[in-house]
Amino acid sequence: KAQEAKNETFGFAKFQKEKAFTPIVGIESWFTYSMNEVKNDVEYANRPDASFRRLRFGAKGTPYSWLSYEIEFNMDRLGEDSYASTKGSYNGFDIWKAFISARLSNDDLLHLQAGYYWAAISLDYMASPWSVSSFDKTRSDWHLRNFMTGRGSGIESGVGLGGLKNFNGFGINYQIGAFSPAAYNGPEHANPLFTGRVMFSVGDPEQKSYKIRHAGNHWNARNGVTIGLGGATMGKADNSSGTAYNNSKAYGADISATTGGLKVEGEYYKMQREASGMNDYEGTEWFVRCGYNILVKGTFVEPTFTYDSYKGEGEKALYKYIGDDKSFDLGVNWYLNKDKLKLSLHYVNQKGSCSSNVGDYLGMALQVRL
Amino acid sequence: KAQEAKNETFGFAKFQKEKAFTPIVGIESWFTYSMNEVKNDVEYANRPDASFRRLRFGAKGTPYSWLSYEIEFNMDRLGEDSYASTKGSYNGFDIWKAFISARLSNDDLLHLQAGYYWAAISLDYMASPWSVSSFDKTRSDWHLRNFMTGRGSGIESGVGLGGLKNFNGFGINYQIGAFSPAAYNGPEHANPLFTGRVMFSVGDPEQKSYKIRHAGNHWNARNGVTIGLGGATMGKADNSSGTAYNNSKAYGADISATTGGLKVEGEYYKMQREASGMNDYEGTEWFVRCGYNILVKGTFVEPTFTYDSYKGEGEKALYKYIGDDKSFDLGVNWYLNKDKLKLSLHYVNQKGSCSSNVGDYLGMALQVRL
Amino acid sequence: KAQEAKNETFGFAKFQKEKAFTPIVGIESWFTYSMNEVKNDVEYANRPDASFRRLRFGAKGTPYSWLSYEIEFNMDRLGEDSYASTKGSYNGFDIWKAFISARLSNDDLLHLQAGYYWAAISLDYMASPWSVSSFDKTRSDWHLRNFMTGRGSGIESGVGLGGLKNFNGFGINYQIGAFSPAAYNGPEHANPLFTGRVMFSVGDPEQKSYKIRHAGNHWNARNGVTIGLGGATMGKADNSSGTAYNNSKAYGADISATTGGLKVEGEYYKMQREASGMNDYEGTEWFVRCGYNILVKGTFVEPTFTYDSYKGEGEKALYKYIGDDKSFDLGVNWYLNKDKLKLSLHYVNQKGSCSSNVGDYLGMALQVRL
Repeated sequence: KAQEAKNETFGFAKFQKEKAFTPIVGIESWFTYSMNEVKNDVEYANRPDASFRRLRFGAKGTPYSWLSYEIEFNMDRLGEDSYASTKGSYNGFDIWKAFISARLSNDDLLHLQAGYYWAAISLDYMASPWSVSSFDKTRSDWHLRNFMTGRGSGIESGVGLGGLKNFNGFGINYQIGAFSPAAYNGPEHANPLFTGRVMFSVGDPEQKSYKIRHAGNHWNARNGVTIGLGGATMGKADNSSGTAYNNSKAYGADISATTGGLKVEGEYYKMQREASGMNDYEGTEWFVRCGYNILVKGTFVEPTFTYDSYKGEGEKALYKYIGDDKSFDLGVNWYLNKDKLKLSLHYVNQKGSCSSNVGDYLGMALQVRL
Repeated sequence: KAQEAKNETFGFAKFQKEKAFTPIVGIESWFTYSMNEVKNDVEYANRPDASFRRLRFGAKGTPYSWLSYEIEFNMDRLGEDSYASTKGSYNGFDIWKAFISARLSNDDLLHLQAGYYWAAISLDYMASPWSVSSFDKTRSDWHLRNFMTGRGSGIESGVGLGGLKNFNGFGINYQIGAFSPAAYNGPEHANPLFTGRVMFSVGDPEQKSYKIRHAGNHWNARNGVTIGLGGATMGKADNSSGTAYNNSKAYGADISATTGGLKVEGEYYKMQREASGMNDYEGTEWFVRCGYNILVKGTFVEPTFTYDSYKGEGEKALYKYIGDDKSFDLGVNWYLNKDKLKLSLHYVNQKGSCSSNVGDYLGMALQVRL
Repeated sequence: KAQEAKNETFGFAKFQKEKAFTPIVGIESWFTYSMNEVKNDVEYANRPDASFRRLRFGAKGTPYSWLSYEIEFNMDRLGEDSYASTKGSYNGFDIWKAFISARLSNDDLLHLQAGYYWAAISLDYMASPWSVSSFDKTRSDWHLRNFMTGRGSGIESGVGLGGLKNFNGFGINYQIGAFSPAAYNGPEHANPLFTGRVMFSVGDPEQKSYKIRHAGNHWNARNGVTIGLGGATMGKADNSSGTAYNNSKAYGADISATTGGLKVEGEYYKMQREASGMNDYEGTEWFVRCGYNILVKGTFVEPTFTYDSYKGEGEKALYKYIGDDKSFDLGVNWYLNKDKLKLSLHYVNQKGSCSSNVGDYLGMALQVRL
């Protein structure tokens, strides 16, 4: 009888034990040889380096039919030589992402996300790093993420909605959110960062079922074009020492076209920030990326190139990167088991007056994920 | 033959593979709206905030029939706006608890605990935060924990014994321990913090089998009253810069009564500390909490209120909170799958001359655990 | 047909789901009583302490037949009283090791390791702490590890090869590597730390299949002798503030002999470092360790003693431990389920002009691993 009573509970309260816990392990080992690095007029010795570009650990699951979670910790850049030409710096162990996702409609139209996740508005912002064809995600998009949230990951605490609807040969996908970047928590103002993104697909859809992130590779199974539009805005913000700015904006568009093994994609976004008694800040970031999957006995070999560019003008107090920052990446990836086992060999050339690194490097990567 | 030899080993040396590892994932998402916060005469803007009140990750298991372990890491308060009215502050990733528990008797009379765990002496000290009916555990008990161990969690390294014996309509439960709070490790003195707690139950027992923590909710299945008495004492302590105090004490009593869906509980504890050439410190903390479970199709809807109060007098050097700190909490919880899936909506009002926050807030919580 | 195509993939690209994830949990609880500790002429009070000497958490797996990984985090020394006589200090949560291992040959001759792992050249450097018979790994070998890598763990980012070949009654085992210690990353020089180690076994082999670490106990199943030779060298290094030294070297030999329950082992290593305009640094570290397994109903009781010694002379700027550092350890271990469940009781006596601790202590340990 107790058993019957238990069976009488709501369907949405039924625990799915077997789907509740899946471990996350993600390893991306880099072996690089850095050349021609110069900082503050000091020439660095060329050098080899072995490090982890990404080292991730965590769990995900769908404990209830409508409710899933992801928690991921990172120890990225472990072992990185801080004099190498690879960008970013070692920061020790930290939380990477943690969020819940609730499906609120029976179809894929309405999902709620809450927690610590991407305030994504652009293509590369929401792209999975594990299947992107360049050696790493673009530096230009890093600037968009860093500008918007004060963090290179572009991950902050917030709440949002997302969903998709696919028709025959046409599809729409959206995400909106409100975030609270810690860099702009202050006593005087409490304006959220509002974000929005919509994607229109022609041909095969970008996503068959809703996911918070984009796949970087469709494994020769998609013929379609997706155009994305994104924007973010934030009102007055203070950073614990008074008003930091009066308003901040980012907006732009991106495109991704896939046919057979070929993928061509790019984005173009503008950033703006204003404060009383200061010059405005204006920035632009864009990239183009092209890859071609060659099917080899169930694996994919993908020659690829990427060019990305950032330019910032105006007041350094509003965004500290004033100048330009450009990278060119040429390489080949071998997806042995899609994005779960991947070998890459790339050459990366970096330039720019506000680029943290101007040396170039040869990089080999081995990526293993569960 | 090797197989036989293996079978000849002691029973307590037999590894239980299938019980050795169970993952721990605990998520408590908070969505709050803070109002009327003032600090150092600065009025803060009212504000919404999305954050994790609790974010836990770890493992537990019973690798041998008599030996179990728990290891849990926390990333609590991730994403919390530090200008919100919610108490506590973001501290990054850390160990929460880590201990082993060994059953030393064939019945439930004698268990040994060792590691990093609760130096618990009171009801709310040892209550599980996941099933407590107030929006959070009481602030008054936080003062007891912080006073005793120098840490808000009340968790420190130590060793202890615990057990229970249930008779027909009557039960006894005890825990004693010796702890070494890091805040009071110094060269001159090495006195442990001794703790003890005993509980007497009439009617249905508080616990049918021994657990180191209390359940906050008995899901309408218990009719019983439990009275608890607890105390802690520590001799001379130095804090790396000489004698911090000559002695420190805490003691008090608590009660918990459950009948059908109704639960009424409360605690009253005193704190005292003395040092040569200083005034004494004297503190009192108490609370009352009441909740009523309404069974709805196998789920529980629980209207609840809590009032808690702390008052401290005397020397600030002996315990830094001199003044008062009070909260009133009114809300409703919906336990969809007991304490594994819980939705809450509460209003919390905070006051007090030594309260870290005096604003009030509306809070919504979504709790998901494996 | 898609199924067939999938079956056509390379054997080395086939994911082994059931072997891809195994959790790591390792707990070593210490209960010590420290006596006679003196620092900077201050006598410390004798004291008991409960702490975790090792607290480990992570995962390992073999997702592909030729490719395995290990990721382990540590919260070692949690709860340790910093005035106790036990060596080392509490450092919070950190990565312990993270590496991938690829078998490149069909036999055991050629394995590649990459990541964050041991730059091991000596017996105790590569010994598993879980089955070593002394209360802890030797302090003398700690100096070798610390000297070589700037880290007490001896773990740094690098790449290496290793393998073994066993003949009838004779075996060879080797490991070579190139590491990049973060302590010696600087702009001017980028010389790797090169390491090498070879072991010759007579009788039963030291390892039947290749493992990156040594077993500390053969459970009465080996009759054999292993002689190991190891060396490391590093050229000019700078430590972000100019040239730290011109060259650094370590080399030595070790022996391990096992017959029935008896194990006798020891190592002797020299350390040298030179810099322009400074005296050289010269150091020596050695130890002997002896244990005897008594089989008791499938469990092993092992009385054991260890003496280890370090001596350093010359320039303190080249290695900060100038003087001597010695320990004597006498105890008994009870392996209830080999190194997965172990109880130990030891007395440790410490001396030395550059020893971080000179008190002695009684220690009890309880070790639990999955």
